[in-house]
Amino acid sequence: MVAAPSVLFPPRGTTAEVEQGLVFQPKFDADGRIPAIISDAASGEVLMFAWMNEEALRLTLTTGLAHFWSRSRGRLWQKGEASGNVLKVSEVRTDCDQDVLWLKVAVAGDGVACHTANRSCFYRSLALPAPAAGAVGLQRA
Amino acid sequence: MVAAPSVLFPPRGTTAEVEQGLVFQPKFDADGRIPAIISDAASGEVLMFAWMNEEALRLTLTTGLAHFWSRSRGRLWQKGEASGNVLKVSEVRTDCDQDVLWLKVAVAGDGVACHTANRSCFYRSLALPAPAAGAVGLQRA
Repeated sequence: MVAAPSVLFPPRGTTAEVEQGLVFQPKFDADGRIPAIISDAASGEVLMFAWMNEEALRLTLTTGLAHFWSRSRGRLWQKGEASGNVLKVSEVRTDCDQDVLWLKVAVAGDGVACHTANRSCFYRSLALPAPAAGAVGLQRA
Repeated sequence: MVAAPSVLFPPRGTTAEVEQGLVFQPKFDADGRIPAIISDAASGEVLMFAWMNEEALRLTLTTGLAHFWSRSRGRLWQKGEASGNVLKVSEVRTDCDQDVLWLKVAVAGDGVACHTANRSCFYRSLALPAPAAGAVGLQRA
């Protein structure tokens, strides 16, 4: 995968620097995005998954409120800007390859992270074991 | 984003069916992949993030052991096939859009999920608050 060169963050170093170093060198994909896992800082529950571009990431880190890039809407957005359910970021981690982010947050407002009015976007689990072929059922988690 | 039609899973329905329905209709991206968040079923810690294609997902669901698709290596792999640190899946959730998976697992072997020998790939956190511009530091989490 060809990564877009970063403007707001340092260039990528060697594999050793990326994996063991103490300088944040995030990798953005060919579309200029990095995936972000959002979990509840108190419960550990995964709340949502979204994408950031460089500007969204920089805004998140400087304001402490999660911002994302919406490809479908073609714009930067602050989570909760309409609903009031902003995400207050208490910790940001990156992975070994520095191409994924994990944010621990507290959801403000009424505490709902999903646009479906569920607290978490992950409100359904798969019915397992799954059949070898064909449809797999879902159930409320 | 144009999604590839699925072969092993049902076709996507309406938005209401995807968000509220009880049939698993995963969305694979234009490269035939779906992202998977992996967390420790006991502690809730996020361990890793990887991608599945249809075959990797079906194998995961039928064997109960996490399989992924490696784009860089161009092949399907079972996590832990070399190290013994296989991921035993206890729960699989999907999100509102059914385009992301969250797996709760127990790590077998010596309990290490990351190739760097760290338990989790997310072994570093960002030093916050971050400066308005320039490099952001990392610290052991």
